[in-house]
Amino acid sequence: MALVSLITDFGTQDWFVGVMKGLILRAAPETRLIDLTHEIPPGDIRAGAFALMASCRFLPRGSVHLVVVDPGVGSSRRGLAVQTEEYSFVAPDNGVLSWALRNQRLRTIHALENPAYRLEPVSNTFHGRDIFAPVAAHLSRGGSVEELGPEIKEILQIAWPEPRLELDRMTGEILYVDRFGNAISNLDSASLGTLGPKRLIVRAHKVRACPIATYYQAVPAGEAVAVLGSSGFLEIAVNGGNAAQRLGLKPGDPIAVQRQG
Amino acid sequence: MALVSLITDFGTQDWFVGVMKGLILRAAPETRLIDLTHEIPPGDIRAGAFALMASCRFLPRGSVHLVVVDPGVGSSRRGLAVQTEEYSFVAPDNGVLSWALRNQRLRTIHALENPAYRLEPVSNTFHGRDIFAPVAAHLSRGGSVEELGPEIKEILQIAWPEPRLELDRMTGEILYVDRFGNAISNLDSASLGTLGPKRLIVRAHKVRACPIATYYQAVPAGEAVAVLGSSGFLEIAVNGGNAAQRLGLKPGDPIAVQRQG
Amino acid sequence: MALVSLITDFGTQDWFVGVMKGLILRAAPETRLIDLTHEIPPGDIRAGAFALMASCRFLPRGSVHLVVVDPGVGSSRRGLAVQTEEYSFVAPDNGVLSWALRNQRLRTIHALENPAYRLEPVSNTFHGRDIFAPVAAHLSRGGSVEELGPEIKEILQIAWPEPRLELDRMTGEILYVDRFGNAISNLDSASLGTLGPKRLIVRAHKVRACPIATYYQAVPAGEAVAVLGSSGFLEIAVNGGNAAQRLGLKPGDPIAVQRQG
Repeated sequence: MALVSLITDFGTQDWFVGVMKGLILRAAPETRLIDLTHEIPPGDIRAGAFALMASCRFLPRGSVHLVVVDPGVGSSRRGLAVQTEEYSFVAPDNGVLSWALRNQRLRTIHALENPAYRLEPVSNTFHGRDIFAPVAAHLSRGGSVEELGPEIKEILQIAWPEPRLELDRMTGEILYVDRFGNAISNLDSASLGTLGPKRLIVRAHKVRACPIATYYQAVPAGEAVAVLGSSGFLEIAVNGGNAAQRLGLKPGDPIAVQRQG
Repeated sequence: MALVSLITDFGTQDWFVGVMKGLILRAAPETRLIDLTHEIPPGDIRAGAFALMASCRFLPRGSVHLVVVDPGVGSSRRGLAVQTEEYSFVAPDNGVLSWALRNQRLRTIHALENPAYRLEPVSNTFHGRDIFAPVAAHLSRGGSVEELGPEIKEILQIAWPEPRLELDRMTGEILYVDRFGNAISNLDSASLGTLGPKRLIVRAHKVRACPIATYYQAVPAGEAVAVLGSSGFLEIAVNGGNAAQRLGLKPGDPIAVQRQG
Repeated sequence: MALVSLITDFGTQDWFVGVMKGLILRAAPETRLIDLTHEIPPGDIRAGAFALMASCRFLPRGSVHLVVVDPGVGSSRRGLAVQTEEYSFVAPDNGVLSWALRNQRLRTIHALENPAYRLEPVSNTFHGRDIFAPVAAHLSRGGSVEELGPEIKEILQIAWPEPRLELDRMTGEILYVDRFGNAISNLDSASLGTLGPKRLIVRAHKVRACPIATYYQAVPAGEAVAVLGSSGFLEIAVNGGNAAQRLGLKPGDPIAVQRQG
């Protein structure tokens, strides 16, 4: 499948994403393109890492995931092409791939050094266009990752924030706030399972004691509820409302799940 | 034509729409995708119904219209596949198809019950991904609607707000405010025709007496004007400005067209 | 390459862009579509002209560039199809093509008068759908520009604001503010070269004396820096911040580059 997915912090106000797509289709006219999101907050590597982790596995096997969240553009940070059993990933070496790669079987990683896969002259401010898009085009039409540059063994990683289990409670943190204001945490069903089948209560910031339910409407309109969301993580929502705004939740905020009775 | 159009209230900040597209292309790699809009206000079934009605007829015959405005996700509301002479529609059974289907010749309606066309395990919060996208993929590659589940005869409808004709005036309501702030009503040219060829004046909220013209620039900059808009309905605009903001117009507001002299 | 790029001021809140795409695929099912931007400020012909100039050359040879920034829709302004050595352009005759055409070898210009390439009845408010999209579809599938209407020799132009060179300084203006708040000027590297290799200092509005550097991080976080941006023009940025907001910069503001010592 010749498909390139795109995650960037470029927004859609300007022509930046369109130009990347133009370059991909210039080199690989048959490639399909899917926008995953272009609204990563500018330079927010953790938000990009979470978006990629939450979405990449739903794309066809063989897809190329192009991730340009690149606050260090123009500095000496490397560009990467990562091949796993299922996908290819193209991104700056700044940790943005870390969380997605936890669920992938790694094959090989190459640094992007071959000038044949660049748009010359390479600018200092838009490697998405000048380096990453041409590389994604090359991989999407079946080009080999070896041609792109030397194999490397170590890349920059950002640690996955593992939930912590204490006596009768588990603590974690908010990782991402979505468009609806749902505050998504790092607590997944496996880790919640270790708390056993007892009644659980969630605390986070102004949220004093919010129940876990299977869907948003399980609580009255306007009330907070914790739900195992579609990405597999516990999220705090407000039925019919915006939890992040109403409860002041943001990425980095602690969250705790407490066993009751 | 293997084409799926998408209308959702998911926004484009997150990866939700991209993941639906990934699943469609996984099952139907040749299918083309067109975003109609993802900015339906969260859960606003009437806005989704209007957007679908205004847009669907411009797509190629045979297109599948995938509409996910789904405030009841996770509850027991059904999913629907509707086949008409020209198109297929895939949506929750909450009325969002009602206004588009008024202009279609209905062939058959099926409930989405066949687990073969689902992404298991089905989540409680994202049926767009787990149910509706796989069904749209199936239909777009020519799959039969019968396989999706039992035929049904009745679906939830929301009534089309018919304009009311009084002696020398016609009353209706604002149904949709577009990006430019134009406030689109339910009064179409056919219903306005019943008022005859006399001079007509529009009233709505703060709009005391605004003329009907054939284009926005027919009034001085900054002034209100009513125009038969591109969707076929009378809309209130401000030449060079935002009518909804300037005049405080919103969906549900009454509008009246009065015959003069 | 059957490819249509789109620049509009329609936004993505409504179905307007999707409907244009539907009509293109109805007439030209194989055509690929690339959104360059739909967030041109409503009616802002100069912003549209800049976006097109900055982006069009990155698309495959043979692409059709469809530009609908059309404040005069419904008036008597003409529609245009312009063929250059590399591309076709479809737009209203209001100057929006002016700056892109400066870099193109012109072949022929035709007025859009042939009703065979229109969606009848043509509305007064949405020529993007009724005139420009059908024409773009025709050209993208290899149709001849001659069929569209009579050849014309003169079109409306907006002047490119040439930088002015004084003794030891060069003056220009801000032309575009991008999503990151970078304020892009009309000063390119060729014109800056005429100032010689001396140390240069940039002034604009509240910016008293900002250095020119090769990337944003060359100055401490929060400070202003001028960089030759990815479109080839000098832009004023704030490292890690929004220059337009912090420094009150907007299109039309004067900018000066002064030689030091």
